[in-house]
Amino acid sequence: MNTKLLAACLALAFGAGAGYALNAWAQVRPDVLVKQRQAVMILHGKYWYRHLRPTGQGKIPYDANLVARNVGFLDALSQMPWDGFDPSTKDAKSAALPAVFTDTAKFNEVRDQFRGEVVKLVAATKGGDEAAVKAQILAVNKACDGCHENFRQRQ
Amino acid sequence: MNTKLLAACLALAFGAGAGYALNAWAQVRPDVLVKQRQAVMILHGKYWYRHLRPTGQGKIPYDANLVARNVGFLDALSQMPWDGFDPSTKDAKSAALPAVFTDTAKFNEVRDQFRGEVVKLVAATKGGDEAAVKAQILAVNKACDGCHENFRQRQ
Repeated sequence: MNTKLLAACLALAFGAGAGYALNAWAQVRPDVLVKQRQAVMILHGKYWYRHLRPTGQGKIPYDANLVARNVGFLDALSQMPWDGFDPSTKDAKSAALPAVFTDTAKFNEVRDQFRGEVVKLVAATKGGDEAAVKAQILAVNKACDGCHENFRQRQ
Repeated sequence: MNTKLLAACLALAFGAGAGYALNAWAQVRPDVLVKQRQAVMILHGKYWYRHLRPTGQGKIPYDANLVARNVGFLDALSQMPWDGFDPSTKDAKSAALPAVFTDTAKFNEVRDQFRGEVVKLVAATKGGDEAAVKAQILAVNKACDGCHENFRQRQ
């Protein structure tokens, strides 16, 4: 069997990002992929900076219903950007540093750490313990930095 | 009691869009609100045109896991844009027609129809009947048009 093809199949089946892929039929332009992943970041920002983070920091009143809704949104959003970091986008204009495409193992590691902390936040929110939810919001915030500090241009 | 204040409180508690508001503390610039609601539409497009709609139309193979994941994403996304259509954005550059702000009752009606069809799609996906899911995808598609045909510039 063609080893390149085998490698491609294995990557598709078992690659770290396989769970984030959209489908195998779609060929999407690099600039569209960038726009889509940037859209996710804009929406992360909407719910994170305006509500979840200040809630975790105790800067605004704790609204359990709103926290549950916005953590649900974050649960969805935090799965969406990754297939947008396709190798075809490495020369497209964006704030992503070249390391995204040269140090993919590390990039995937911080991605998985971030996603893992979000999954824990979803669980904490269902548990209903306000202090635990707030602490986990701060853990997610730290995990955001894991990517932003090493893989994104300073803004 | 001040009747204006009472009206404002009632609108906050029972207004049609109350469930979509982010929080009462944040004051966000109109151009940011537009960018955020456009980000939602970009992501609707990602999952709708590349996967869910062609699945409903039978143009690509039915992948139950991917359908469940993407319908989950749609469930979240379909709640996100509405607070972005704030009256403060009525003069901001976007594809939204003035009718969004002059015929708000009708806009909210098609919004609720769309959201209602998405909720039915979530239920159908959990039911696991492929034909029912495909039919409901087409119902959602029709509901998208309810807004796009009357409240968005032709593109």
